[in-house]
Amino acid sequence: MAKKLTTRSEDYSKWYNELVVQADLAENAAVRGCMVIKPYGYAIWEKMQAELDKKFKATGHQNAYFPLFVPKSLFEAEEKNAEGFAKECAVVTHYRLTNDPDKPGKLRVDPQAKLEEELVVRPTSEAIIWNTYKNWIQSYRDLPILLNQWANVVRWEMRTRLFLRTAEFLWQEGHTAHETKQEALEEARLMNQVYADFVENFLAIPVIQGVKSASERFAGAEETYCIEALMQDGKALQAGTSHFLGQNFAKAFDVKFANKEGGLDYVWATSWGVSTRLMGALIMTHSDDNGLVLPPNLAPIHLAIVPIYKTEEQRTAIAEVAEKLKSELEAVGHTVKFDNRDNFKPGYKFNEYEIKGVPLRIAIGPRDLENNQVEIARRDTLEKKTVALDTVTTLVPELLAEMQEQLFDRAIAYRTEYTTEVDDFETFKTVLNEKGGFISAHWDGTRETEEAIKKATKATIRCLPIDGEKSAGKCVFSGKPSQQRVLFAKAY
Amino acid sequence: MAKKLTTRSEDYSKWYNELVVQADLAENAAVRGCMVIKPYGYAIWEKMQAELDKKFKATGHQNAYFPLFVPKSLFEAEEKNAEGFAKECAVVTHYRLTNDPDKPGKLRVDPQAKLEEELVVRPTSEAIIWNTYKNWIQSYRDLPILLNQWANVVRWEMRTRLFLRTAEFLWQEGHTAHETKQEALEEARLMNQVYADFVENFLAIPVIQGVKSASERFAGAEETYCIEALMQDGKALQAGTSHFLGQNFAKAFDVKFANKEGGLDYVWATSWGVSTRLMGALIMTHSDDNGLVLPPNLAPIHLAIVPIYKTEEQRTAIAEVAEKLKSELEAVGHTVKFDNRDNFKPGYKFNEYEIKGVPLRIAIGPRDLENNQVEIARRDTLEKKTVALDTVTTLVPELLAEMQEQLFDRAIAYRTEYTTEVDDFETFKTVLNEKGGFISAHWDGTRETEEAIKKATKATIRCLPIDGEKSAGKCVFSGKPSQQRVLFAKAY
Repeated sequence: MAKKLTTRSEDYSKWYNELVVQADLAENAAVRGCMVIKPYGYAIWEKMQAELDKKFKATGHQNAYFPLFVPKSLFEAEEKNAEGFAKECAVVTHYRLTNDPDKPGKLRVDPQAKLEEELVVRPTSEAIIWNTYKNWIQSYRDLPILLNQWANVVRWEMRTRLFLRTAEFLWQEGHTAHETKQEALEEARLMNQVYADFVENFLAIPVIQGVKSASERFAGAEETYCIEALMQDGKALQAGTSHFLGQNFAKAFDVKFANKEGGLDYVWATSWGVSTRLMGALIMTHSDDNGLVLPPNLAPIHLAIVPIYKTEEQRTAIAEVAEKLKSELEAVGHTVKFDNRDNFKPGYKFNEYEIKGVPLRIAIGPRDLENNQVEIARRDTLEKKTVALDTVTTLVPELLAEMQEQLFDRAIAYRTEYTTEVDDFETFKTVLNEKGGFISAHWDGTRETEEAIKKATKATIRCLPIDGEKSAGKCVFSGKPSQQRVLFAKAY
Repeated sequence: MAKKLTTRSEDYSKWYNELVVQADLAENAAVRGCMVIKPYGYAIWEKMQAELDKKFKATGHQNAYFPLFVPKSLFEAEEKNAEGFAKECAVVTHYRLTNDPDKPGKLRVDPQAKLEEELVVRPTSEAIIWNTYKNWIQSYRDLPILLNQWANVVRWEMRTRLFLRTAEFLWQEGHTAHETKQEALEEARLMNQVYADFVENFLAIPVIQGVKSASERFAGAEETYCIEALMQDGKALQAGTSHFLGQNFAKAFDVKFANKEGGLDYVWATSWGVSTRLMGALIMTHSDDNGLVLPPNLAPIHLAIVPIYKTEEQRTAIAEVAEKLKSELEAVGHTVKFDNRDNFKPGYKFNEYEIKGVPLRIAIGPRDLENNQVEIARRDTLEKKTVALDTVTTLVPELLAEMQEQLFDRAIAYRTEYTTEVDDFETFKTVLNEKGGFISAHWDGTRETEEAIKKATKATIRCLPIDGEKSAGKCVFSGKPSQQRVLFAKAY
């Protein structure tokens, strides 16, 4: 049986690491900073992928696939982008291994097989894609291009954590090309909105939509839209970003089009992405000291049925009822596991489904059979109740819908509690250290102030929120005029 | 408008290359040997993925994800496997780029950021996966493990062709672990059967199931099962393989389990994969001199509606009928494109849907409107007929089903015609050079004979067929005794 988890209050970070492993979601690989996504974790990621993919297609996007490798000369073409990622690039320099003359049976890199030009393993694909778009775009008739790709990317991070920051991760990256600045801006905002809808309604994680300050922008972007979520330890997590890239990549790769007026213009661009990092956000938003808590939309198993018996006769009788229930629930679209393993005790099974965050658990014992009832337990509230057997098929969808909603409500309530308006820097520091969460404060808009606050507190500007009232005030640090409150937090 | 294709009889290879590009399926990338899979091509690949994924799950497999990189020391652990792939490995040696002191604005590989151990970009994942399974398997209770991953792999091929042989390609790779030899063998055969069913029933490509000769086996396998298809130029194409790996990887990575009897055994393994190469097989099996021909199961668009009009009034009236038809057909699950673009002539559109292999095309003109009829054209036979408007919604599914079936029948007939039983080596050479196709001949089972035939003719043993009658005879080359006929062919 899994060991008892460290609790969140004991050590939040340890709790997270243990939970990811004990819930069978992922583990560290033999390759530094990389992870193995285990079947149970991958099944959750697949649900995210399916829903996002549907949303991308519904907004007119198509999938495509571009190469894993970016030749160095293309990688460096857009200088800001290159500068932003150069420090964390895995680089392929050779294309062959050969027998090691010094160590029989071992291999070494073949010095004869050095590439003329090194290849960067994509940390993001703007460069390779815009080099391709160059050949696809001649006229306004070729625009817009609305593509997405599901891919792996590599960023050689020094300090890694499962799902949150890994050297290799899985993501989708949208790359679009437009005639006008306005159209590209609208696309970037639309996709940020798509992300917000997805994360709130599907993952039950409330997010703030905003724009990044200049220093937190994507390297090569003119504007970065983002969705920011708040984890249970009071730290923020950037859950998705959507970039308005201006004409930066079009200029770097010389991508011009004949416009409707007969002139030549550079193409306008966006890119947007979410990654397996969302798994980290999902885990940290909803889970508790007993393990994973999953919104039903994401649950690979909605309901587990555990039989409780002493005799074979009882086991057979319960199995009959359980199988019938399973069929009925599956017929209306739920995923049900009837756990009839004989070599594990009910307590062990209860614990397993608890740590794995299975939303509902039904236990059936001999007395339940006699009384035509079952015990049903909710993972989120840990409530149990006994219900009539013939109400289960109507009760289950109701409970699942309720859980999906209540998890969101609970997360909203947490965020509301942990968002504090602050107007002076002493309070800023106290709130940040003693309470945590989002601090809503005025900022004078300068990079210097942003830097000074970060240096003093480790808090960064998570975003300039898009929605809500924008009232002027005085910067919490410098006292200079400010146009609106922005959100500060320590962040993942 | 697309240029006219080179015909198959003029130059089959050129026809294929042109078709892939003109049908908008893929193109060569800026990275040597890599491809860009364009949206139309990717949409076909997605249909393959979805169907295969369903079949894998229906046979008890789950998806997971393992790292892109394999540390060299793990890569070389299973010596035969390492030897088989060493010559075509992309190798990551550094993890950072830095400003080039000699070229302002340019980057170079940072000599300070050399990896202690080089990382191989996976050409296949047995090594990294078995190194992981080692930690997952202690007892027979942990078996079987039935996993699959959808991933990109890199094999540094010197001569590449879109879809057929590219340095990076997309594939799925199943990796399973079992208690007994028998169970692993059954798994390997089962998955080869799954591939055969998928390729025949979904892609409409007939295949021969067989086992590979020792020299054509996967590096590190004890037995390689395969499905072999025949292309229209008389060359064979290996469409999928399923390997019985014995205990080779378990021994290389020391993966033992406590068996039911209390002893320790090495685990038995299989692996199996199909790739974007199937796109090449699909194209070459069905297409003709006018472009791509797609079995309806794979078609991103089932039916295109092209209006033919002179006046705006006619255009409006036709659009009304076309939109209604589109809705009706979409309601029963077909993908319909109503191409109402005004800046392209009908002939241009006809050509576009022809080269892209859209199975059905409907043209509606003013006279059709008057007579409540439309013209419907089949892509496979190029037949056109005029039918009553109110029969279209019943006709379309019938025609699509018929096309799916007839494409398979046509391919079977071709294969039957181009499979020749041969009993002497002179005829072998004549048939191979003048007719092509599969040659069914006796072989003495030795590597020497296989080599000699290959050297003399470029034909390889595609497989030892599993099905069909096995009668003894004399080797076509050596005259020595043979247990069964095997299939020879020149191959992709």
